[in-house]
Amino acid sequence: MTKHSTHSTGWSDRLRVSGPVDLSAIDTSATPGVLDKDAAEDVFGGTSRSLSKLQERLFAGSLSGSERSVLLVLQGMDTAGKGGVVKRVAGPMDPQGISHHAFKKPTEEERAHPFLWRVEKELPAPGHIGIFDRSHYEDVLVPRVHELITSEELTARYAEINEFERRLVSNGTTVLKVMLHLGRDEQKNRLLRRLDRSDKHWKFNPGDVDDRGLWPLFQDAYEVALTETSTEHAPWHVVPADKKWYSALAVQQILDEALQALDLGWPAADYDVEEQRKRLLAT
Amino acid sequence: MTKHSTHSTGWSDRLRVSGPVDLSAIDTSATPGVLDKDAAEDVFGGTSRSLSKLQERLFAGSLSGSERSVLLVLQGMDTAGKGGVVKRVAGPMDPQGISHHAFKKPTEEERAHPFLWRVEKELPAPGHIGIFDRSHYEDVLVPRVHELITSEELTARYAEINEFERRLVSNGTTVLKVMLHLGRDEQKNRLLRRLDRSDKHWKFNPGDVDDRGLWPLFQDAYEVALTETSTEHAPWHVVPADKKWYSALAVQQILDEALQALDLGWPAADYDVEEQRKRLLAT
Repeated sequence: MTKHSTHSTGWSDRLRVSGPVDLSAIDTSATPGVLDKDAAEDVFGGTSRSLSKLQERLFAGSLSGSERSVLLVLQGMDTAGKGGVVKRVAGPMDPQGISHHAFKKPTEEERAHPFLWRVEKELPAPGHIGIFDRSHYEDVLVPRVHELITSEELTARYAEINEFERRLVSNGTTVLKVMLHLGRDEQKNRLLRRLDRSDKHWKFNPGDVDDRGLWPLFQDAYEVALTETSTEHAPWHVVPADKKWYSALAVQQILDEALQALDLGWPAADYDVEEQRKRLLAT
Repeated sequence: MTKHSTHSTGWSDRLRVSGPVDLSAIDTSATPGVLDKDAAEDVFGGTSRSLSKLQERLFAGSLSGSERSVLLVLQGMDTAGKGGVVKRVAGPMDPQGISHHAFKKPTEEERAHPFLWRVEKELPAPGHIGIFDRSHYEDVLVPRVHELITSEELTARYAEINEFERRLVSNGTTVLKVMLHLGRDEQKNRLLRRLDRSDKHWKFNPGDVDDRGLWPLFQDAYEVALTETSTEHAPWHVVPADKKWYSALAVQQILDEALQALDLGWPAADYDVEEQRKRLLAT
């Protein structure tokens, strides 16, 4: 029942943003499209299986020359749950078709290059699902918050990103962008939990508290970035992230819809099956 | 019961080879260390959970400066099940701590470099578990079978590999090497199945039948390679591979033992926890 209502509207349609984005108008604890956690787990489990099959087709296609790939970009404030989403969504898929990359603070070498240089190197190969935990969007968020570059430079970067993503899409990459939209209070809870447990201390960084102090500036930077770069070819989705089971489900469904839309078949054999069977039986 | 007897002898001890290797003396359908499939699934499930925790510790350590990493090298004849083992063993782990690479036939650029050049580039970063589906061992197997290089060059390559792996180990990488030892009849069954099912055609390659025709030469090349490169610091394991549930379990157990031996703790906080709590509560 819930399952059906879940599937009646597309998840991408439901969570996609366009035009001027107002994050304060989007409830971080909402769960649009699904009734509760039990219903979510039910849908999640079913999709895990079908998604693995779709991933296999994507991968198989690349061996017979298809250029198709998928890039999932995950952004969000600290503790928004990017890592957890990756683990839950990508875990059941075949690791050999996944290329995951977590972008850290740029190194000196990276800073010496144009900001898309390090991103280019991590793009998914044909047949792969690339997952970016943070991305080139850090290069418009952080500089805006800390006023590291001029507003003209920022504007140029948004345009550059749009051009870059347009090129990816023309080359056969489906670009899915997701902002995990976390509430400020929930972030506090999650950071406190990291301090409470010694097995979570490694996940905490004093800089997270500094960034938290800049919360309104980051929200603003996100709003501008999403407004400027949510395009027809590479739209942004804003996924409420206070409930981890919800954000995992939403990202999974967005990915599943995108793969379904590719209408992937199994590639045809480029050899004569019967001839090969004969050869094989003779060995 | 089976669980206990499984753990009483180490898997690595059981399956490790040293000295002159005679593959024909190792039964490809044996299941040493476990009674049957049910017992295997039981052990596998339990270890999946503990292995994920160990992987998290390995990853956490790297954020506080540990250089430790693990490299799992998988080799085997076509259809030996390398991909399936990766999927089953690595699937439950966190994708952000896994770096998987499948080595294909060398490209022109790769052939223009020393054979370890492309391998070097794919080594796991600190904190990561790297998984090689095929590896630098292709560069001693294929050339020997097809007589592409002289026996002096081959001998030099074995030595180079041993030196290379010794360096990895000194730099904090645990090197685990596994040959999935498949029976010739079972390979025939698996190749036939790929021809029978149109959703498996993409996995079949007429070259697989050619290689199958060279079976004794490949077994011989494996025997020499294993004999020459099963070292104290980077031993080879020969895992019977006719039963997929067995090979997945064995590889998982070898990996689990290696991680347990690292005796990984959670890294201590490099900040004052109480001070950070106060700062956080003030926000």
